Amino acid sequence: MNKCENMKYGVVGTGAIGGYYGSKLAYSGKEVHFLAHRDYLYMKEHGMQVDSCDGSFHLDHVNVYQYTKDMPKCDVVLVGLKTTNNHLLAELLPPLLHEKTVVVLIQNGIGVEADVQEMFPDLQLVAGLAFICSAKTEPGRVNHQCYGSINLGNYSCKDEALFNAILNDFKEAGVQAASVPYEEARWKKAVWNMPFNGMTVALDTQTDLLLKHPSTRKLIRDLMMEVVGAAQHLGVTGLTEAFVDKMIETTDAMTPYSPSMKLDYDFHRPMEIHYIYTRPIEIARAAGFPMPKLEMLEAELRFKS
Amino acid sequence: MNKCENMKYGVVGTGAIGGYYGSKLAYSGKEVHFLAHRDYLYMKEHGMQVDSCDGSFHLDHVNVYQYTKDMPKCDVVLVGLKTTNNHLLAELLPPLLHEKTVVVLIQNGIGVEADVQEMFPDLQLVAGLAFICSAKTEPGRVNHQCYGSINLGNYSCKDEALFNAILNDFKEAGVQAASVPYEEARWKKAVWNMPFNGMTVALDTQTDLLLKHPSTRKLIRDLMMEVVGAAQHLGVTGLTEAFVDKMIETTDAMTPYSPSMKLDYDFHRPMEIHYIYTRPIEIARAAGFPMPKLEMLEAELRFKS
Repeated sequence: MNKCENMKYGVVGTGAIGGYYGSKLAYSGKEVHFLAHRDYLYMKEHGMQVDSCDGSFHLDHVNVYQYTKDMPKCDVVLVGLKTTNNHLLAELLPPLLHEKTVVVLIQNGIGVEADVQEMFPDLQLVAGLAFICSAKTEPGRVNHQCYGSINLGNYSCKDEALFNAILNDFKEAGVQAASVPYEEARWKKAVWNMPFNGMTVALDTQTDLLLKHPSTRKLIRDLMMEVVGAAQHLGVTGLTEAFVDKMIETTDAMTPYSPSMKLDYDFHRPMEIHYIYTRPIEIARAAGFPMPKLEMLEAELRFKS
Repeated sequence: MNKCENMKYGVVGTGAIGGYYGSKLAYSGKEVHFLAHRDYLYMKEHGMQVDSCDGSFHLDHVNVYQYTKDMPKCDVVLVGLKTTNNHLLAELLPPLLHEKTVVVLIQNGIGVEADVQEMFPDLQLVAGLAFICSAKTEPGRVNHQCYGSINLGNYSCKDEALFNAILNDFKEAGVQAASVPYEEARWKKAVWNMPFNGMTVALDTQTDLLLKHPSTRKLIRDLMMEVVGAAQHLGVTGLTEAFVDKMIETTDAMTPYSPSMKLDYDFHRPMEIHYIYTRPIEIARAAGFPMPKLEMLEAELRFKS
C-alpha cells in the first residue's frame, strides 16, 4: 500500500470551514475523524448535513469525538478553529500526531503558521486558504452558499508526495484545490480579508454596500493597496494593482456578504483581530512599511470588541 | 460719536452658538437683531433663555426676524449657521450689509472664509473660533454647559479699530475674547475638531470613551498629529506635538461630550463633512501632505451620512 493511500484525516474545529471540507472528504469515502464541541451529541446521533450550492448531501454516520485523546492518530489534520482559539492547539493537537502528520491550518490571517510552528517545532505545516462562503448556523449542519475552493501553501511539509496526496484527495472529493506559494497566497488572501472583514464591522454593513458607495469603494481600494504595498515591500511576488482590481470585480459579482469577522461581531464572538490585523501590520511596520488606514481600522475594531 | 460705539449686531443662525453669543451681547446692552427660523414665533413672544454654567439669564424682549430683508443694516453680523447651510448666505447676507459691515463666521472647519469671500469679494470677514459646549434643545433656550470663550482671527477686515471694538464688546458682555492669527487659529481648532467630531460618529461614542480605550486614545493622537503635520507643511506656525498633548489633556478633563457632528448625526441632521474634512484634506494634499487616517474617517462619515 502506498503510504499516501487511505490517509486518515482529523478535523479540529468542525465549523463552517472544517465541517465543510471534512464532510466533503468523508462523503468521497475518506476516513475522517471530527472533533466537535457543542455539536458532539447531535452529530453522533444525526450525522452531518451539508446544504450546498454544489449539491447538498447528508452523512448518516460520522466519526465524532469530544476529546482528541479519544481520536486515532491522523496522517492529516485540518484545523478549522478560529485563530482566537489557537492557544488550545498546544493541548488539542498532540494526541492526533504521529511522526509524519501534516497539519493544514485553514485559518485567517498572517503569522498563524509561524506561531503554531513555535509550539511544535518539528510539525509539518501547510496553510489552507479557503475561498468559500459558508456558515454553520445549526448543530451538524453546514450552509455552503458559494465558491468552495481551497489553496494549499506549503509552509514546512518536507514530504512532497504527502502534500500532493492531500491536494489529490480534495480534488477527488470534488473540491477545487491547488498548490500555491505560501507567502504569496497568505498575502493575496489578506488583500480581500483585511479591508472587508473590518470595514463591514466598522460600518455595520455588507460587502455590496461598501462597494456601492463611492467613498467606501475608494477606501476599500486604498486599504487593498496598503496590503499590496506591504507585500511588495516584503518581497512577496504576485501582488499587483491588477490583482486589486480583480478582487473588487469578484466582490462586485458576489451576493451581499458578511465576512466571518462580521458574523463574529454580530453574534458577540471574539473577532480575529490579532492575525487579520495586528500581525500583518506589525510585520509590515517592522520592515519599514506603515499601513496607516489599516492601523486605524484595527483601532476601531479593538474599540468595538 | 465714535463710529465703533453702539454698534448694531445681527445674528444669522440663532442656534447653540449664534444664540449664545448674541444673547450675551444683548444682555450686556448691545443692540442685537436675531434672524430665527423655527424659533421665530416663540422668541417673539417669550424672548430668550440662556441656561449657563456662568450664570443663567433671560431676555424678555429680543429683536427677532423671520427674514433678513426686515432687519436693519448691521455693523457686525455674527454667522452661527451650520456650514451645510452656507449656500444660503448669498441670499441672507445682502440686506444686512452696509459698506463697512464686518461678518464674523463662527463656524467649523477650514476654507469657510475663502468660500464666503468668493461670494462677497469686498466684504470684511473675521473668523470666530468658539470654544464652547452648548446646545439648543428647545425653542428660545440655549443650554451653555461649559467654556464659552471666542477667538477672533482677522481674515479680511481692514478696519482695525472696528475689529478691536468687536473684541471689546464681547469682553464687556462677559465673554472671554482674544485676537488670534487667522490660519493658526483655524488649524489649531482643527486639531481637536477633526479627530473628535468624526470619531464620535464613526464609533457612536463620546469623547471620554475614545480617550479611555488605549487603541482609540492612540488613534486620536495619530489623527491630531496628521493635522499638526499638515499645518506645519503649509507653513502655519504654532502647531506642535506639545499642543496635541495639551488638547488631549484638556479633553481628559472635560465632561463626556458629544461634539456638534455627533449631535447632527444623532438627530439626523446633515453633518459638516465638507468644511471639517474634505476641504482641509484637499488643501493638505494639494500641498503634498496626505492625511491617510483622516481621509479614511471622511470616507466612513460619507458612508454614514
